[in-house]
Amino acid sequence: MDFDRILEEIAQHVRPCFGKGRVADYIPALAAVPGDKFGMALRTVDGGYHEIGDARERFSIQSISKVFTLNIAVSYVGEALWRRVGREPSGNPFNSLVQLEYEQGIPRNPMINAGAIVVSDVLLTHCDDAKQTLLDRLRALSGAADVGFDPVVARSEAETGFINRALASFLKGHGNLENEVEAVLDLYFHQCALAMSCSELSMAALHLANGGVSPLLGAAVLTPQQSKRVNAVMLTCGLYDAVGEFAFRVGLPAKSGVGGGIVAVLPGHYAVAVWSPELDESGNSTVGGAALEHLTTLTGHSVF
Amino acid sequence: MDFDRILEEIAQHVRPCFGKGRVADYIPALAAVPGDKFGMALRTVDGGYHEIGDARERFSIQSISKVFTLNIAVSYVGEALWRRVGREPSGNPFNSLVQLEYEQGIPRNPMINAGAIVVSDVLLTHCDDAKQTLLDRLRALSGAADVGFDPVVARSEAETGFINRALASFLKGHGNLENEVEAVLDLYFHQCALAMSCSELSMAALHLANGGVSPLLGAAVLTPQQSKRVNAVMLTCGLYDAVGEFAFRVGLPAKSGVGGGIVAVLPGHYAVAVWSPELDESGNSTVGGAALEHLTTLTGHSVF
Amino acid sequence: MDFDRILEEIAQHVRPCFGKGRVADYIPALAAVPGDKFGMALRTVDGGYHEIGDARERFSIQSISKVFTLNIAVSYVGEALWRRVGREPSGNPFNSLVQLEYEQGIPRNPMINAGAIVVSDVLLTHCDDAKQTLLDRLRALSGAADVGFDPVVARSEAETGFINRALASFLKGHGNLENEVEAVLDLYFHQCALAMSCSELSMAALHLANGGVSPLLGAAVLTPQQSKRVNAVMLTCGLYDAVGEFAFRVGLPAKSGVGGGIVAVLPGHYAVAVWSPELDESGNSTVGGAALEHLTTLTGHSVF
Amino acid sequence: MDFDRILEEIAQHVRPCFGKGRVADYIPALAAVPGDKFGMALRTVDGGYHEIGDARERFSIQSISKVFTLNIAVSYVGEALWRRVGREPSGNPFNSLVQLEYEQGIPRNPMINAGAIVVSDVLLTHCDDAKQTLLDRLRALSGAADVGFDPVVARSEAETGFINRALASFLKGHGNLENEVEAVLDLYFHQCALAMSCSELSMAALHLANGGVSPLLGAAVLTPQQSKRVNAVMLTCGLYDAVGEFAFRVGLPAKSGVGGGIVAVLPGHYAVAVWSPELDESGNSTVGGAALEHLTTLTGHSVF
Repeated sequence: MDFDRILEEIAQHVRPCFGKGRVADYIPALAAVPGDKFGMALRTVDGGYHEIGDARERFSIQSISKVFTLNIAVSYVGEALWRRVGREPSGNPFNSLVQLEYEQGIPRNPMINAGAIVVSDVLLTHCDDAKQTLLDRLRALSGAADVGFDPVVARSEAETGFINRALASFLKGHGNLENEVEAVLDLYFHQCALAMSCSELSMAALHLANGGVSPLLGAAVLTPQQSKRVNAVMLTCGLYDAVGEFAFRVGLPAKSGVGGGIVAVLPGHYAVAVWSPELDESGNSTVGGAALEHLTTLTGHSVF
Repeated sequence: MDFDRILEEIAQHVRPCFGKGRVADYIPALAAVPGDKFGMALRTVDGGYHEIGDARERFSIQSISKVFTLNIAVSYVGEALWRRVGREPSGNPFNSLVQLEYEQGIPRNPMINAGAIVVSDVLLTHCDDAKQTLLDRLRALSGAADVGFDPVVARSEAETGFINRALASFLKGHGNLENEVEAVLDLYFHQCALAMSCSELSMAALHLANGGVSPLLGAAVLTPQQSKRVNAVMLTCGLYDAVGEFAFRVGLPAKSGVGGGIVAVLPGHYAVAVWSPELDESGNSTVGGAALEHLTTLTGHSVF
Repeated sequence: MDFDRILEEIAQHVRPCFGKGRVADYIPALAAVPGDKFGMALRTVDGGYHEIGDARERFSIQSISKVFTLNIAVSYVGEALWRRVGREPSGNPFNSLVQLEYEQGIPRNPMINAGAIVVSDVLLTHCDDAKQTLLDRLRALSGAADVGFDPVVARSEAETGFINRALASFLKGHGNLENEVEAVLDLYFHQCALAMSCSELSMAALHLANGGVSPLLGAAVLTPQQSKRVNAVMLTCGLYDAVGEFAFRVGLPAKSGVGGGIVAVLPGHYAVAVWSPELDESGNSTVGGAALEHLTTLTGHSVF
Repeated sequence: MDFDRILEEIAQHVRPCFGKGRVADYIPALAAVPGDKFGMALRTVDGGYHEIGDARERFSIQSISKVFTLNIAVSYVGEALWRRVGREPSGNPFNSLVQLEYEQGIPRNPMINAGAIVVSDVLLTHCDDAKQTLLDRLRALSGAADVGFDPVVARSEAETGFINRALASFLKGHGNLENEVEAVLDLYFHQCALAMSCSELSMAALHLANGGVSPLLGAAVLTPQQSKRVNAVMLTCGLYDAVGEFAFRVGLPAKSGVGGGIVAVLPGHYAVAVWSPELDESGNSTVGGAALEHLTTLTGHSVF
């Protein structure tokens, strides 16, 4: 595959897609990002690297962080995690309280906010310093020693995060948080405020395309079964309430964030990260989705 | 009407009803109340007073306080209140988040927790010291200068009130709270912790049976129209998700609390308060409900 | 009370209310009714009769029929009815399937379509000829020997009644219909197609203002307790999803229909029927609601 | 891969799984099937065939038929289908009415009953004889000229299918059925009553593992894009409300039926069908699910 040419074709192809979505504006730090940014980076399991556009500019990874905290939680508690959070698609928006009430405080999956808050609670219980553990893990996986939290974003999230506070309080009220609400939210708001580039994200996710083994570290981050399962959770739950649409059009396990990033993997082949800040109604990058759809169309290769 | 004889007959009639419900146990202060307590006090608009049993023992009025805060809020902001809270029965449990999400943060009515939290927010905005205002109002209406908050109950409510914290955070996230979440909850948890007796409650509610005029104060607390409307809200929304059942069996506007109290009025005739701590599944006093049903049966007089 | 003068004042008062609602148009026979019709008839329990406007013109009573079939079903099976249908307000539109699914085929109350279909099923089981029984009852109660079904409306209802067919099929699937779906719907569509005038309706409902005794028949149609309970069900469930609003503004037990009619009672005093075809979003007559609100305002007398 | 040995290991592995589920009993013809049946057939895209157990015994394919009617509908109307049915996982049981009401008669996806009924309606509109077209297609795809409907099952489905009748009536009421309710249901009940063996099903689905080209016919049944999309819909929606669980454990696009069958594909490699009648709470074959999980574990190969 000539991925360099493919990325160029994609960059051409997505040009008419700008202007159809809306940059997230619930906090000033996100609203200030120019809507015309576009970056894409693809790493193959055999060491190839290809990029285009703003692939080395860092952005707020937001919900993409849920994949990485899930990785860590699974490595700590294994299957026990699934007693506290489900693995079914929710069919509802990412911040919905409805299902949580009907299902007595057990979030549908770890990719919606409520589920990710439970995952953060697991980290808090098992780490001496959960924020540092998360940073250490991402720095190791991405090979970028200066990956960090954007303090402005973290503070804004904390100041405006009333719905997440409602979710966490509700979880606490149902006995599904071990730590204090504010401690869990502090970690959660920080993980959402991680700043990374497409280049870094494609490296950090590459083990999911490689049976759990990080080519950079030369070591297993997850067992093959865990890696398969994280991919399954991404495919069925990773795109908010547009999971089916994304599987239908793109056909790759993926996770999106309202900062406009999407990370996807083709198991056995590559990990890819794309970033463009304009979002559709479900909160997924419009241009990013189009780029990934064109990627699997041009290569003729998806998981389906 | 020989109300003294009627109350005696009721006290006989409800004896077999004890042991069928469960005393509220979500906080220790409520769990410690003996389940066999029973008191009832009835005041007629022309000055009659009748009581039986533990009618002068104070208990935690809990959600009954929602009627009194609604009274105050209506007197402050009038019809404007209904832009922030509805007046339809909810068909859901008192602490449900579901409807609040479907209806964008506008609680169905002021008798469910979410609606009462909005009402508390109104008080906080319009009073210099909302807790003192509430105390002053209840002391004036009841004629009992030492009505107060039970500090143990208030603290327990605050420590365990995660679902209410979730509701308040959700309201804040939807722009339906003007004050800080914790400030509103502090007032809300205190109003739930008010300790009053049946005798005091029957006096405090008597204006609702008298077109808004308190016989004790000799002054209008509400306009006749406001009094009618508060009664309407009580009848359609005052008994959690057992509103229809209570209207069907008892047929009086009423408000219950999980402390086991129920206040009811027959407009033009009387206000009545009953207390017995055992609750049914909806959170209403089992013995109290039976007592009020027998009252309207014996007198042959309800609003229907 | 000078009810003649009051009705005249009401007729004046409601003039600006025309043009704000929409005549039902889901079947041609209803869509053809002029929106400016207005009639009102009030009968006191002591024999007074007062009317204004189009009070003797017949219209399609639609859901008002649910009160009369409930009357008959209660007289046949008494309390057993409530094992098959609840008596709580639904908080949902009249034709909602949602609650029915969550609550395993037990409709919330007999005033919503699903509940009324169960009531029709009871009639079908207990009557040799349920349609004739219904006609006989209404003719006797109203004193109008020629009350009948509008065959054009009945046929249109049957041809377009897919949502009601869905409700009935769902009830059948949950074991809550004893008779065949189409047989029950045939009765249900006919009862909706009953044509009566305000004058006739006010007489047919007068027993509900009189402890169950029809002044016309000089006989008890319901026991005092049954009459109280039907009134309670009307007040908490009779106005679709605007029950609270109607109780708040009008304060009378009532039942509306999409033909634009509303029947209401003030127990101990009068029954009143009003008709004007324009409907609000909940399916209740806009002008009719305003008329009844003005009635309880002018008389200073509601159940609250 | 030595698939013969793998199937033998699977047959050993699933032995302890019998007795944990429940054979479908909503119609007599299904209830009569012995619970200890087990068959499995796997066909590779390069012509390999492997089977074990009752792989040539026909059973009622039930909801598996939804994949084949979807194939036909897509080949008739292409992308236009998705204006009438969504492609998101539902998060609800297969026969739920709730979402259909909230979403105005547009079913979430074609794998739940409501969506499949819309698909049947498409066939009815575009075929002279839709039942014959369906038979012709399945006979061609499977190479078995005598594949047919089980008339006893079809009649039982029709007699007991009240919930499906409710769904179809509801769709009709929302304008999402072009044909008569009973005509659509007749086709739907027949497609559910198709009797096929694992051997036949693995052949009939093989084009989905082969980019839309049937190796048997040597011709494209679907375009590569359509084939990818049908697989995506199966993976995100094909296992009722256990989609996430199945993706997590098995990791293959699949469709199950309450007759105990499951068809799955590994794109580029094979199609597999398994049958064992005992069902879990979601309506999926317990033993069949365990068999497929063991298949992807032993081969170390799923889409993830």
